[in-house]
Amino acid sequence: MKKQIVLTGIKPTGMPHLGNCLGAIRPALHLAEQQNCESRFFIADYHSLNTIRDADTLRAYIYEVAASWLAAGLNPDKTLIYRQSDVPETFELATILTAFTAKGLMNRAHAYKAAAALNVEGGQPEDHQINMGLYTYPILMAADILLFDTNLVPVGKDQVQHVEMAQDIAGVINYNYKKDVLVIPEALTTGEMMAIPGLDGRKMSKSYDNHIPLFLPEKQLRKRIMKIVTNSQGVEEAKNPDACTIFALYKLIANESEQHALAERYRAGGMGWGEAKQELFERLNAFLSPMREKYDALMADRSRIDTILADGARRARETAQRTLSRVRKAVGIG
Amino acid sequence: MKKQIVLTGIKPTGMPHLGNCLGAIRPALHLAEQQNCESRFFIADYHSLNTIRDADTLRAYIYEVAASWLAAGLNPDKTLIYRQSDVPETFELATILTAFTAKGLMNRAHAYKAAAALNVEGGQPEDHQINMGLYTYPILMAADILLFDTNLVPVGKDQVQHVEMAQDIAGVINYNYKKDVLVIPEALTTGEMMAIPGLDGRKMSKSYDNHIPLFLPEKQLRKRIMKIVTNSQGVEEAKNPDACTIFALYKLIANESEQHALAERYRAGGMGWGEAKQELFERLNAFLSPMREKYDALMADRSRIDTILADGARRARETAQRTLSRVRKAVGIG
Repeated sequence: MKKQIVLTGIKPTGMPHLGNCLGAIRPALHLAEQQNCESRFFIADYHSLNTIRDADTLRAYIYEVAASWLAAGLNPDKTLIYRQSDVPETFELATILTAFTAKGLMNRAHAYKAAAALNVEGGQPEDHQINMGLYTYPILMAADILLFDTNLVPVGKDQVQHVEMAQDIAGVINYNYKKDVLVIPEALTTGEMMAIPGLDGRKMSKSYDNHIPLFLPEKQLRKRIMKIVTNSQGVEEAKNPDACTIFALYKLIANESEQHALAERYRAGGMGWGEAKQELFERLNAFLSPMREKYDALMADRSRIDTILADGARRARETAQRTLSRVRKAVGIG
Repeated sequence: MKKQIVLTGIKPTGMPHLGNCLGAIRPALHLAEQQNCESRFFIADYHSLNTIRDADTLRAYIYEVAASWLAAGLNPDKTLIYRQSDVPETFELATILTAFTAKGLMNRAHAYKAAAALNVEGGQPEDHQINMGLYTYPILMAADILLFDTNLVPVGKDQVQHVEMAQDIAGVINYNYKKDVLVIPEALTTGEMMAIPGLDGRKMSKSYDNHIPLFLPEKQLRKRIMKIVTNSQGVEEAKNPDACTIFALYKLIANESEQHALAERYRAGGMGWGEAKQELFERLNAFLSPMREKYDALMADRSRIDTILADGARRARETAQRTLSRVRKAVGIG
């Protein structure tokens, strides 16, 4: 049986945090190891251009996100990783798709509708400060997907619509030219993303500033963990591990016997919050250290990242050129 | 003084007609011969994809339009001619421009507004059957222009807005990155296009079916000319050359003494409309024959067209790559 092509986009928004790692990166890498899949990852750098208007920031974010995935276990010999901007076939395919995309379809995109609704609420014209990059984002994403004859796109629920739009656009082209020009992709909904609590107990998110950046130096990592919000129970009091952010985070990385042991100490009393935080710090540090070393080594010698991404792009373009050439011929350009 | 880069887009909509030749092609080629200009022509094949949904038709149109311009005198050794689709840097630049284009700007584009107004008039939703290719057309056109550091874009009045949009978008990028990333182009309004009458006296246009295709075989050309609508004056009557489509067309291609001679015969009477049409046919055929021969030769050996366009693309891409690389660096992708 032909392997299923699985494509995952990575938006370069700087160093990921622990929530990204546990909730997205590791599940994606786990999926990539499935025997019946051929997984591809790409850094969607042009998608970021819609919001990141400083060149040095964007450049740094791209390296940080590439180094993070490589450090987290992405093996570039087995799994393709490339930059969207290194595969120019993407943009030509997007141009072709644009000609077959109904404007009405774009009007219904969640992200655009939300931004427009916010404008109207605020008494602004609907399209106030909305750029065409946001508005046409689903077309570029469709090109990313369709260029590789992708079968499966692992996405959260909020991204399912984008895959449906890729289906729609590909369908219009296949129907118009009366042949299977493009492979129709399917969304692989990853279900509810594992809820990773942040320092204040809410979902971990950079925008809440309650996150734990993945590769902080040890000292800063410890400082960050010491900021976890707890209740005001004293040292001697017995504590409930199941109502505590420290333990919730500990559970995500510790094995069962470690979890059991710490839970016992919670229930027994005599352990203060500072001590629990120290336990978490040590366990987390042990978990992150090998990754952090890899990350730091990669960031110290960015030419290694360049080489890996260039090699990924070269291999990705072999497929990309084949698909694009097929589409060009079909529409009468090639 | 540095030569001004002048860029002209050619939309492949099949064999041009006499009106196109006299009103657009020849003036453009005349401009290309100016000493202080470096002219570039490109066949905007992806722009045509918005309306031409049959592959063989599009392919044929591209060859026909290329052969027509070459036959009409475009010298590919002196003047660059290339296909838009052969310069993929165009589509990557368009992707970058998209991120810096306000949606409000696109909403104000004449072509989109006209299509939307027509929908509303007809009781349809505003965006009924409008595709994103039409809506984002000004961005792709801006990429065509900006990619070559174009200084001047010769356009009819209806296209001035597109050049202004290219200025706007380039301006946003230059302002954001605080340097001259892109050259701001200027529209070179070609004034009122010479009015070329069609067979029925209205402006010559394919959509009125009153046009004279440029490279009809002789017999068909004669047949077409015999269809010119005249008044019902008899052979012997004196006629007014200045109120006659036959003479209006004759004037456009005959020299002054020829014009004078035919006008005399009009005024003298004794010449029927059939005879006048025959005069026009002979003069027009003499004018078109050398071009038609070139055109037929090119269409009989399309590989010559391929070679010319491939060579043009190779040379065009040298500039294109330089510009794109500059823009990529500026935004933090390169």
